[in-house]
Amino acid sequence: MDTKTLFKERRSVNFFDKNKPIDETLLKEVVDMAVLAPSAFNLQPWRIIAIRTDAGKNRLVGLANKQEKILDAPVTLIIIGNKDGFADSNPVWDEMLASVGGNTEMVAGAKQAATFLYGSSEDRKLKFAESNAGLLAMSLMIAAKDKGIDSHPMSGIDFDGIHKEFGLKESETVVMLIGLGYFDSSKQLFPRRPRRLFEDITTII
Amino acid sequence: MDTKTLFKERRSVNFFDKNKPIDETLLKEVVDMAVLAPSAFNLQPWRIIAIRTDAGKNRLVGLANKQEKILDAPVTLIIIGNKDGFADSNPVWDEMLASVGGNTEMVAGAKQAATFLYGSSEDRKLKFAESNAGLLAMSLMIAAKDKGIDSHPMSGIDFDGIHKEFGLKESETVVMLIGLGYFDSSKQLFPRRPRRLFEDITTII
Repeated sequence: MDTKTLFKERRSVNFFDKNKPIDETLLKEVVDMAVLAPSAFNLQPWRIIAIRTDAGKNRLVGLANKQEKILDAPVTLIIIGNKDGFADSNPVWDEMLASVGGNTEMVAGAKQAATFLYGSSEDRKLKFAESNAGLLAMSLMIAAKDKGIDSHPMSGIDFDGIHKEFGLKESETVVMLIGLGYFDSSKQLFPRRPRRLFEDITTII
Repeated sequence: MDTKTLFKERRSVNFFDKNKPIDETLLKEVVDMAVLAPSAFNLQPWRIIAIRTDAGKNRLVGLANKQEKILDAPVTLIIIGNKDGFADSNPVWDEMLASVGGNTEMVAGAKQAATFLYGSSEDRKLKFAESNAGLLAMSLMIAAKDKGIDSHPMSGIDFDGIHKEFGLKESETVVMLIGLGYFDSSKQLFPRRPRRLFEDITTII
């Protein structure tokens, strides 16, 4: 799909057609395209819980202000950020070590830098997880639209309740939900809300 | 540009051709395309400082680990998140009021909900600013690439130093920098670092 058209046509869709499923192969295609997003040190401090079953939707809907679209969307993604994504436990470090021909000193230096930059306080850790996972979230919505799939990001949710219900680690943060599916064309889409443009938001120095 | 190709070809480019400028018209086109990104309640809790002059680059480079690309890139964007973006002071609320035909009760309800969701603690405020600005950052890199412009997100930076040097408000957070320009083709781009794929990062429920 042409990217300009995609940006114009990507809308946050409030109503999903509950009779149009997304199979796992298609979901994989979306995710595998979206993870091409960049991240700090390529650490990819994120993971996804994909809610596809009725049982899963029922666990989630009450924690998302009972939004009907959780029940209607064939898939809702819980986007999870890893506040400890710079730590030794991240498997990306092993991949990095291999990619630099086993130069342990170089990787140790990168780990030290990442820990200093992103791990020096609880604020920094949260910032690291949320901003990187934000990159993934946008990438997912664009990758989905490229495959004709509509989306709706949701942050009108019980962040702590979802964290608990789905057994997230202390080091993890619920960034947002993204409903995926196909717009229910029997419904009406509101006109797109206006955006603040270049002149409104940019200072040139 | 075809979005699949764009995703494959968008790389974080370490070397920018310092002889290829980006004029303000083109920069505006990138930003105005990127702001079509969604945000919570459409609050768009973000703004941008675009560093284009030598004087600006000299102020920034020392706060970005002296990365050469700050000096070479024709433009570097400071992506700023607004931790108070749900507050009355956000002009988007006035636009929302107009869009619902002056229904003050509806807008008051939305403000109350947003304040509850995003303003209940310092953590929540940071999370709100960083995740929404993350959506914008990814959108900017894709919009740039659509216009043939390469980019490089940077978070190996002195967040507090940049905050101070550029006079940001207490309620604002430096999310990341994004260098924009054209790859210096006399340099070599490293192979793309691998990504963790669907199977590695997704739990299905």
